[in-house]
Amino acid sequence: MIQQVREKKPLIHCITNYVVANFQANGLLSLGASPVMGDEIEEVKELAAVADALSLNIGTLNQRSVESMIAAGQSANEKGVPVVLDPVGAGATAYRLSVIDKILKEVNVTALRCNAGELAAMMRKGWSAKGVDAGEGDADLTALAVDAARKYGFIVAVTGETDIVTDGDIIHQIHAGHPVMASVTGMGCLLSSVTGAFLSVEKSADAVAEAVQFYGEAGERAAAISEKPGSFQIAFINAISTINESKYQIGGRA
Amino acid sequence: MIQQVREKKPLIHCITNYVVANFQANGLLSLGASPVMGDEIEEVKELAAVADALSLNIGTLNQRSVESMIAAGQSANEKGVPVVLDPVGAGATAYRLSVIDKILKEVNVTALRCNAGELAAMMRKGWSAKGVDAGEGDADLTALAVDAARKYGFIVAVTGETDIVTDGDIIHQIHAGHPVMASVTGMGCLLSSVTGAFLSVEKSADAVAEAVQFYGEAGERAAAISEKPGSFQIAFINAISTINESKYQIGGRA
Amino acid sequence: MIQQVREKKPLIHCITNYVVANFQANGLLSLGASPVMGDEIEEVKELAAVADALSLNIGTLNQRSVESMIAAGQSANEKGVPVVLDPVGAGATAYRLSVIDKILKEVNVTALRCNAGELAAMMRKGWSAKGVDAGEGDADLTALAVDAARKYGFIVAVTGETDIVTDGDIIHQIHAGHPVMASVTGMGCLLSSVTGAFLSVEKSADAVAEAVQFYGEAGERAAAISEKPGSFQIAFINAISTINESKYQIGGRA
Repeated sequence: MIQQVREKKPLIHCITNYVVANFQANGLLSLGASPVMGDEIEEVKELAAVADALSLNIGTLNQRSVESMIAAGQSANEKGVPVVLDPVGAGATAYRLSVIDKILKEVNVTALRCNAGELAAMMRKGWSAKGVDAGEGDADLTALAVDAARKYGFIVAVTGETDIVTDGDIIHQIHAGHPVMASVTGMGCLLSSVTGAFLSVEKSADAVAEAVQFYGEAGERAAAISEKPGSFQIAFINAISTINESKYQIGGRA
Repeated sequence: MIQQVREKKPLIHCITNYVVANFQANGLLSLGASPVMGDEIEEVKELAAVADALSLNIGTLNQRSVESMIAAGQSANEKGVPVVLDPVGAGATAYRLSVIDKILKEVNVTALRCNAGELAAMMRKGWSAKGVDAGEGDADLTALAVDAARKYGFIVAVTGETDIVTDGDIIHQIHAGHPVMASVTGMGCLLSSVTGAFLSVEKSADAVAEAVQFYGEAGERAAAISEKPGSFQIAFINAISTINESKYQIGGRA
Repeated sequence: MIQQVREKKPLIHCITNYVVANFQANGLLSLGASPVMGDEIEEVKELAAVADALSLNIGTLNQRSVESMIAAGQSANEKGVPVVLDPVGAGATAYRLSVIDKILKEVNVTALRCNAGELAAMMRKGWSAKGVDAGEGDADLTALAVDAARKYGFIVAVTGETDIVTDGDIIHQIHAGHPVMASVTGMGCLLSSVTGAFLSVEKSADAVAEAVQFYGEAGERAAAISEKPGSFQIAFINAISTINESKYQIGGRA
């Protein structure tokens, strides 16, 4: 599917946080996608309507950007543009949870891309998250992901040591990636918008699983060059631009 | 002229977008310039008044920052500080076009640095741009750049495969650069503020052409080290810091 | 102390500028800390209350973020969470000085991390700063740092060719670092939040001096790999993740 993504050159409208915006834009360009990042209420409906996917990220949310996310999401919904939500730091504050609830109420989200701590927080399960990092807990993540997918009617991609992708019916477990990915900010955020690019080719759990698989393999390839976070970050952008096929079948190693 | 820029160490006030701000600041530091990036209305007049150039960029514009851009621009005008406008994604939304019109009405812009799609949008010519990327079209860019320069009384630098710099009278065509530059976000944005640094030495189309030429050569040198977008980005910042003279004459290869 | 920082994995709440946010987050992750970067008034009290340190940075301040900084600072004070203030570009505008005064009036700041020009501006001494860069002047920095520490009751870390750390009583002079550090944006900003991480282990001038010493050594190690600003930046993030002990005693070379 990566070939189809590169041929389509999808336009990805990102309303994202200012910590990762540069990395996210460069990752999308390396993928062959075109990022556009406006978050002003006066223009987001127009941007989302012509995009091939909309990527919403609450990492440095504020009242102004939340309003823009909802307007952009509704515009994307009207045009059938897939919407990916990244609920960064969901459990960190009550405000984040209330914003996520509001977005989910007003926008039809196609896919949720998050870490375990964020999923647990959204589903009100006990979890010891650390700010925006995943943290630790005992929840059965696969069951939780299936529950979330059924409750909200979207595809869920929870990434971590094992990645889980489900639409509530199909379940993919993906074993790709490398631990150093947790030492670079925005790795999850970029994956969320890469997921949008794959969804622009096909709106399915399989497409999301392919995005996650592709991304993990890019991480493995970059980690083979360097496991130090600075060098890894650069090698990872390079890897996204050069990997043209998956070594593995969807759902696990071949 | 690069030697004069490095000796002057110009202070460049940038009101820019949060996607490229880091890259833009690092590029200016590598050039030997000092970036300062405040966008709060309470302080932008003061910053612009003491700067050696003002660089305005609408990549992630919002109502607050547009107000600041105009205030800063007027302050720069009062002090004779050159102003460079980068109309990022001009054709992407009606809002962007209206903001550009407003800025051009209220501020005397010294130079416009843009891509072909943005110039075509500003001049209301047909062009198929892709978000903030250049896109494709049939307009005669040189004629369009000359028209724009005469209409608005500023220097125009349109960058792409061939770069065109004109003040409506002198026309420079520059053949420098490398295709990988289109795969790194903020390459155009940084050039706009580098253009400001050159304009702080001399307010002329020749100075803008030298900036564009210098920048393209830095791109060539970096691409000789790596054509992968992650590594290129780092090699490019290195190249800006080390190139001390142009291999070519202004206006074409020697 | 670096070992203790890595074991603690402190959560650092940063309200920072969008120019350096990515670099700051990656630097903190490399250190083994967890950055969280919300700046919305609705959530900053909650974030600061659970953090191990709060890092305030006025690089791209605006009226909204200043309000959030004060709310976060007061929340940190209530919980005994150390607060580091980075008065970026203090002397650049009257607005910045007024904001710094306001923050210092309403928040108990544990440590101030700044350059010479910023300290001089805060203490209303003559100094020729350049935007947000240090600039040049004749003030006796050690005396000025001691004065500031006594006046405001915080630890002062002024970094430059020689770094000075003082609580108004103990004085550390640190000779670490490399000139290329001045060519990368956010080097000071990241140090400020690294200082927060060290303060989360021990609230003392010694802890701040260890942070500054560690940071300078990381700079030396990275500069030994490359003195070009692009490559240095990556080598520096790598160095932060790998240095596990100081070669030197606090207060000077052994």
